[in-house]
Amino acid sequence: MSANTFGTLFRFTSWGESHGPAIGVVVDGVPPRLPLAEADIQHWLDQRKPGTSRFVTQRKEPDRVEILSGVFEGQTTGTPLSLLIRNEDARSKDYGEIKDLFRPGHADYAYWKKYGIRDHRGGGRASARETASRVAAGAVARRILGDGVRIRGALVQLGSRAIDRARWDWNAVGANPFWCPDPVEAAAWEPYLDAIRRKGSSVGAVIEVVAEGVPAGLGAPVYGKLDSDLAAAMMGINAVKGVEIGAGFAAAALSGEDNADEMRIRDQAVAFLSNHAGGILGGISTGQDLVVRFAVKPTSSILSPRKTITVHGTEAEIVTKGRHDPCVGIRAVPVGEAMMACVLADHLLRHRGQIGG
Amino acid sequence: MSANTFGTLFRFTSWGESHGPAIGVVVDGVPPRLPLAEADIQHWLDQRKPGTSRFVTQRKEPDRVEILSGVFEGQTTGTPLSLLIRNEDARSKDYGEIKDLFRPGHADYAYWKKYGIRDHRGGGRASARETASRVAAGAVARRILGDGVRIRGALVQLGSRAIDRARWDWNAVGANPFWCPDPVEAAAWEPYLDAIRRKGSSVGAVIEVVAEGVPAGLGAPVYGKLDSDLAAAMMGINAVKGVEIGAGFAAAALSGEDNADEMRIRDQAVAFLSNHAGGILGGISTGQDLVVRFAVKPTSSILSPRKTITVHGTEAEIVTKGRHDPCVGIRAVPVGEAMMACVLADHLLRHRGQIGG
Amino acid sequence: MSANTFGTLFRFTSWGESHGPAIGVVVDGVPPRLPLAEADIQHWLDQRKPGTSRFVTQRKEPDRVEILSGVFEGQTTGTPLSLLIRNEDARSKDYGEIKDLFRPGHADYAYWKKYGIRDHRGGGRASARETASRVAAGAVARRILGDGVRIRGALVQLGSRAIDRARWDWNAVGANPFWCPDPVEAAAWEPYLDAIRRKGSSVGAVIEVVAEGVPAGLGAPVYGKLDSDLAAAMMGINAVKGVEIGAGFAAAALSGEDNADEMRIRDQAVAFLSNHAGGILGGISTGQDLVVRFAVKPTSSILSPRKTITVHGTEAEIVTKGRHDPCVGIRAVPVGEAMMACVLADHLLRHRGQIGG
Amino acid sequence: MSANTFGTLFRFTSWGESHGPAIGVVVDGVPPRLPLAEADIQHWLDQRKPGTSRFVTQRKEPDRVEILSGVFEGQTTGTPLSLLIRNEDARSKDYGEIKDLFRPGHADYAYWKKYGIRDHRGGGRASARETASRVAAGAVARRILGDGVRIRGALVQLGSRAIDRARWDWNAVGANPFWCPDPVEAAAWEPYLDAIRRKGSSVGAVIEVVAEGVPAGLGAPVYGKLDSDLAAAMMGINAVKGVEIGAGFAAAALSGEDNADEMRIRDQAVAFLSNHAGGILGGISTGQDLVVRFAVKPTSSILSPRKTITVHGTEAEIVTKGRHDPCVGIRAVPVGEAMMACVLADHLLRHRGQIGG
Repeated sequence: MSANTFGTLFRFTSWGESHGPAIGVVVDGVPPRLPLAEADIQHWLDQRKPGTSRFVTQRKEPDRVEILSGVFEGQTTGTPLSLLIRNEDARSKDYGEIKDLFRPGHADYAYWKKYGIRDHRGGGRASARETASRVAAGAVARRILGDGVRIRGALVQLGSRAIDRARWDWNAVGANPFWCPDPVEAAAWEPYLDAIRRKGSSVGAVIEVVAEGVPAGLGAPVYGKLDSDLAAAMMGINAVKGVEIGAGFAAAALSGEDNADEMRIRDQAVAFLSNHAGGILGGISTGQDLVVRFAVKPTSSILSPRKTITVHGTEAEIVTKGRHDPCVGIRAVPVGEAMMACVLADHLLRHRGQIGG
Repeated sequence: MSANTFGTLFRFTSWGESHGPAIGVVVDGVPPRLPLAEADIQHWLDQRKPGTSRFVTQRKEPDRVEILSGVFEGQTTGTPLSLLIRNEDARSKDYGEIKDLFRPGHADYAYWKKYGIRDHRGGGRASARETASRVAAGAVARRILGDGVRIRGALVQLGSRAIDRARWDWNAVGANPFWCPDPVEAAAWEPYLDAIRRKGSSVGAVIEVVAEGVPAGLGAPVYGKLDSDLAAAMMGINAVKGVEIGAGFAAAALSGEDNADEMRIRDQAVAFLSNHAGGILGGISTGQDLVVRFAVKPTSSILSPRKTITVHGTEAEIVTKGRHDPCVGIRAVPVGEAMMACVLADHLLRHRGQIGG
Repeated sequence: MSANTFGTLFRFTSWGESHGPAIGVVVDGVPPRLPLAEADIQHWLDQRKPGTSRFVTQRKEPDRVEILSGVFEGQTTGTPLSLLIRNEDARSKDYGEIKDLFRPGHADYAYWKKYGIRDHRGGGRASARETASRVAAGAVARRILGDGVRIRGALVQLGSRAIDRARWDWNAVGANPFWCPDPVEAAAWEPYLDAIRRKGSSVGAVIEVVAEGVPAGLGAPVYGKLDSDLAAAMMGINAVKGVEIGAGFAAAALSGEDNADEMRIRDQAVAFLSNHAGGILGGISTGQDLVVRFAVKPTSSILSPRKTITVHGTEAEIVTKGRHDPCVGIRAVPVGEAMMACVLADHLLRHRGQIGG
Repeated sequence: MSANTFGTLFRFTSWGESHGPAIGVVVDGVPPRLPLAEADIQHWLDQRKPGTSRFVTQRKEPDRVEILSGVFEGQTTGTPLSLLIRNEDARSKDYGEIKDLFRPGHADYAYWKKYGIRDHRGGGRASARETASRVAAGAVARRILGDGVRIRGALVQLGSRAIDRARWDWNAVGANPFWCPDPVEAAAWEPYLDAIRRKGSSVGAVIEVVAEGVPAGLGAPVYGKLDSDLAAAMMGINAVKGVEIGAGFAAAALSGEDNADEMRIRDQAVAFLSNHAGGILGGISTGQDLVVRFAVKPTSSILSPRKTITVHGTEAEIVTKGRHDPCVGIRAVPVGEAMMACVLADHLLRHRGQIGG
C-alpha cells in the first residue's frame, strides 16, 4: 500500500498537516453519474468534528468541505474528486515549548528517525486531524455502496469499562456523547471520563463497526482478502493497536464445533445459525453482517509529566498541554465507519471488474 | 493489495491449488548479489511442513523447493525468483464425498458465491498449503534483512490455555511440538491436544512474532504504515481472526500514563523504559522490538457432524474426514514469521527508495 | 497505471477541470529535506503558461502555484505536497453553443461513451490545462534529480517544417517563441504559423527531450523498462500520437552494423561512439544522453466547419471558436521535459530501493 | 509499472532466463468460468516459436506450455494461472567466449551497471525468449475479450522496404514467412533478407497491430490512457524503439482540418469518415479500429566485428555467433498482438470495475 494512498480501484490520496493552511483528499475511481453535493459529505464530517462535547478536543474546527473537482451539475463525472478542508483554529504557539522534545507514545521520535525533519506543530501529518480526509472519502464510498449497505459503529469499551452486549440498542448510540449502544453503561461513562479528563489523563477504547447488506462474494484470496484489507484499514487509523473480525481473539479458545457457523435454508434463502466468522470466510464475504472491532490506545498527550529525551539527545520531562481528547477513541467511531465504507466500495468495484455484474 | 501478490518493492505472487500438480511463488524486487541456494529456503520450509508430529496433518509432503530462475552461480541476479514446490501426496478421493457440500467455517461457500465454480479438492486455492509459498518468500526476505534482524515466533495460547509469560524461554520453543516458549505449559499441552485430536475436534491458538534488530524509521504515514501492513499480512494468513501490536487490545484499558513508553539515554543510546507500542509509533518503527500477535480460529474440518447445505440449496449434514490439523495454529508460527520478514524486507527497500542508504 | 496517478515511488495524482475553481496535484514519495519554495515550481510553470505569445492560447492564466502541505521551514518533510493552481480566466460561456456537439478529434465523444456524462466546458478534465499539474510535479522531480541531471526540450518539427539538426543550438531555444533550436528555421516558422493562425487552422509538431547526466543503471526489465515508462509518459500527454527513443522509427531501416553503438575507453571512462539507442538498452539507462521524441497532432479546435453529430444522435456541423493554440505542440515542450523528470525521479528512487545507495 | 508484472486488474508476472530450466508466467485477475485448455494457449505460442523458417533463429524450442494452476475441469476458476514453458535447446556453450564482453546494442552493459552481475548465457532475462510468456498471457487475454474483438498484426516494413498499403490483404499475412500483408512485397523480401542473413547482418522492421470490435469507452484519463498503456506495452517489447497510434508521427504535418475524423450517422449508428486517431481520443476508445505501429531495431547479434569493451574495462572486438534472427521484428508480430490483447483485457476489466456492465 502506498504511503498516502488507500485502495485499488476506489482509491483516495490524502494530504495536509494539522497546522498547515488546509488538509484534503483526492478521491479517484468514483463511478460516474452518482448524485453528490458538499452537504452529502458534510453530514459525515460533522459527526467527527471536534468540539461537540467536553469529552473531545476543544479545538474549534468547522471542518467545512469544498468540492473542487469531479462533480458537474450535481453528479460525479468519473474524474477525481478533490475535497478541501481548511484549518481554521490551528494554534501553533501551543506547541512551541515542546518543539525539541519527543512526546512518549507520539509519532515524534519515529518521524525524526525516518525523515530527519518534522513539523512539530500539532503532530503535523501524524495528527488525528488527517482522519477528516478519511471521513470525507468514506462519504463518497457510501454513495457507491448505495442504500442497501448500512454501516454503523459503536464504542463497546471505554477504558476498563465494557458494555453489556445484551443491552445493545442502536438507537442509544446517537443519544450519548460516546457512541455507546448500551444506555446504562453510557450513563456511567460520563462521570468516569470526567474524572479522567479533569486530572489530565486519558484512556483507550474499543470500537465495533458493523456493515449490513453486504453481498456475498466480495473480497479475494489470498492477499487481497476482505479481512486483510479491513485489518489494514483499521490498524492504519491513528492510535489503533488491534483489530479483530467476528469472534476475533476469542476464537482461539473455541472448539471447532462451537466456532462453526452452521447453515440452513430459511425462506428459500441461505441462513447461518451464528456469525463467529464476522461475515468473512476465506477472505470473501458470505452475505452475513461484517463485524470488525478495533482497539484504540489512550491519548498520548497527557498532563502528568513523563520522562523523555530531546532532539539533542539529552534527558527531559514533558507535559503536553494543548487541547486534547481524554479518549481519542470516541472520535474514531465515524473514522472506522468511513474506512469500512472505503474498503467495501473498493472491493465492490474490484469484484465487478473481475466477475462482472 | 492485489489478490495474489503481496508487497510493493519486495513483492511476491503465489499460485497453485492444494491438489494440483504443484504450488509456487514468484519473488520480485530482490536485490542482486545476495547468496542464495535451495537449501537456504528449504531450511524454513522444513519448519512448516506437515507430518512432523501427531499434532499436525498426516499428509506426507516433502515440500522440496526448486529455484527455476533468478539465481546465477549462487547469487541472486535482481530478476524474479521462481520457486516451485510439487504436490506429491494429494489424495483427491478423500474429498469426493463432500464435493457438493459447503463445509461450515471453510471458504467453500464464499468461493462458490464469488466465482460460481470451485476446486473442491482439499480447499483448492484456499488450502493452508498455499502458506508454503509465503514461507519460501519469507526465506528470501530474511536474506535481504540480513543477520542483524532476528525474527522468531511462538505459540502463546493453545485453545483455552495461555502460557505464563514469566516463564518465557526462547530455547524452549524448539524443544516441543508446539513452538511453546513456556516449558511447563508445553508439557500440559500434550495431553490437552491429544484429547481434542482423538475426538476429532479442534482448537484455535494465539501466535506471537517478535522481530529484534529492526532499525528505527521503517514504515510510513498514513496508509503505508508498518503496523497497517503487518496487520494485513497476518490477517491474510488462513484462519486468522485477529491481530494486535504491542499492548494490543489491552491498551484500551490502560491510562495514558501507564501506556506511555518513557525514554531515557542509556550508554549514549536512546532507551525506552517499556514497549507498549510494540516497536511502532505513527506507523514507523522506533528501533524497539516489533511485537505482533495473531489469533487463529479452530480448524474447521472436524469429525462431529455439522448442519450445512449443498450447492443445490438443500439441507444436509457434514463430517470432514481427510487428514487435518487438530490445531492449525501450530503450523502458522513459521508462516507468521515469514510474513513478518516479507513486510520488513519490503519496508526496508521502500525506506531506502525514498530516503536513501 | 492508475487513471489519475503517475509513478511508483515518486508518484503524483492530478485533479481538476479546465473550468472548475482550480486544478492541482498531490506529489507523494518526495525525499525529505530538499529545499523547496513556491518560486522553484513557479519558474517552470511560467514556461508553460498561456498567453505569452500570439502563437499560443490567449487565455490569461497566471498559473500561480500554492504549496498547501509537505513543506516545513523551506524544506520538504517527506509527506505529500499538495499543489494548487486556481483557474482565473475560465470563460465557460464560450462553450455554451457546443455543449451538445462532439468536436471531431476531441475527447468529447469518447468521454460521453465511457461516462455517460461530460463537463463540456473547455474540455473539462481532458483539457490541456491539466498539464500544468505535470509541470508542477516535474519541478519537484527536478529537485530530486539534482543539478547533475539536465533536462531540455525543443521543437524539432512544426507542421511540415523540420529543423536542420546541423544547426542545433540550445541557446536558440529560448530566443524564439517556438522552443526551436534552429535559429534559421525559427525565423521561417513565424510567418508560417501566422498564416495558419489567421485562417483559424492548426498544425502539429514533433518535440525532442534530452536528459544529460543520467547515471547508468536506471530502469528495469521487463515491464518496468525505462523506455516503456517514458513511452507511457509521453503518449499520455494530450494530443500525442507517437513516441520514439534514440534512432526511433528510423532504426527499422538500419543494418545491425550501423545501429550498433560501439564502445571504447576514453580517459579511463566508458565511451560510446554513437547513440542510436537513445541512452537505453534492455530497458536500462547506459549513461549516455536520453533522447526521446514525441509527435503532437494538430489542435482539434479550428474555425473551419467540420461534420459531426450531436449527443442526440443527429448530424450537425461544428466550428470551435474559443481561444486556442494554433499549434498545441509548442506548449507541450515544458510538459515533455516535466514528464521526463518525473520518470527519471521515480526510477532513481526505485533503483535505490532495490539496489541501494 | 512493476518490473516484471504487467497490468492492473488483468495482470501477469513473468519469470525465467533464456538458459535456465524453464520460463513462465503467472496470470492473475482472470474471470472465472472461461473455457481454457493448454491447446488454446499453444495455438498462439506456435506462431511465435523459433525455427519455423530460415528467417528466424534456428534454436529448436517446442515451447510446450503446461498449465499448473487456475483451471479446474476445463474452466478458469478465478485464481492465478501458472503457465510453464521448459527450455529444451539452450546451448550455453555458445556464449562462453563472450561472457566477459559487452555486446553493443545488447542489454549486457546496462544490466552490468545496474545489478553488478549478469547471466550472460543467451541474454539471460533480457532474451527475446521472455516474449513467449507474453504470448501465453495474450492467449488468456483473448479468451477474456471474446470473439467479438479481433486482433491481427502484420509486418509493414522490413529494413528499408515498406509495403504498399493499397495492396493490403489480410489473407496474405499467413501465406509468407514475414507476416507481410502485401503479397508483392513479400516476394521481394525473400531475396532481400536472404542476402542480409547470409552475410551475418540484420535489419529492423515496423509492425502494425489492429484490433477490430473494441467497444467505445475503454481507457481513462489522464495517466491510465489506453494509448499510454499501449505505448508502454509495445515499447516494452525487446528491441522496440518507437510506437505510434493512428496517423502517428505523420499527424505532426497534418492540418487540423485534415486530421479531424468527421462524424456522421450511418444506419442509425455513429460512423467516422476517417481514422487518423487510430481509434483513441482523450485516452479512451471510440469504437473505431485500434491501430498501433511499432519499430523494431535490427538484431544486435551480428557476425561483423564491432568495437566493444570487457567487464574489466579493456577494449576489445566482438563477433556474436549463436543462432540469431536476421530480423527479430518478424517474431515480434505475435508478441505485439499479445500485448494488444493484454492491454485491452485489462482495460475491459478496469472499465467494468468503475462503470459496470
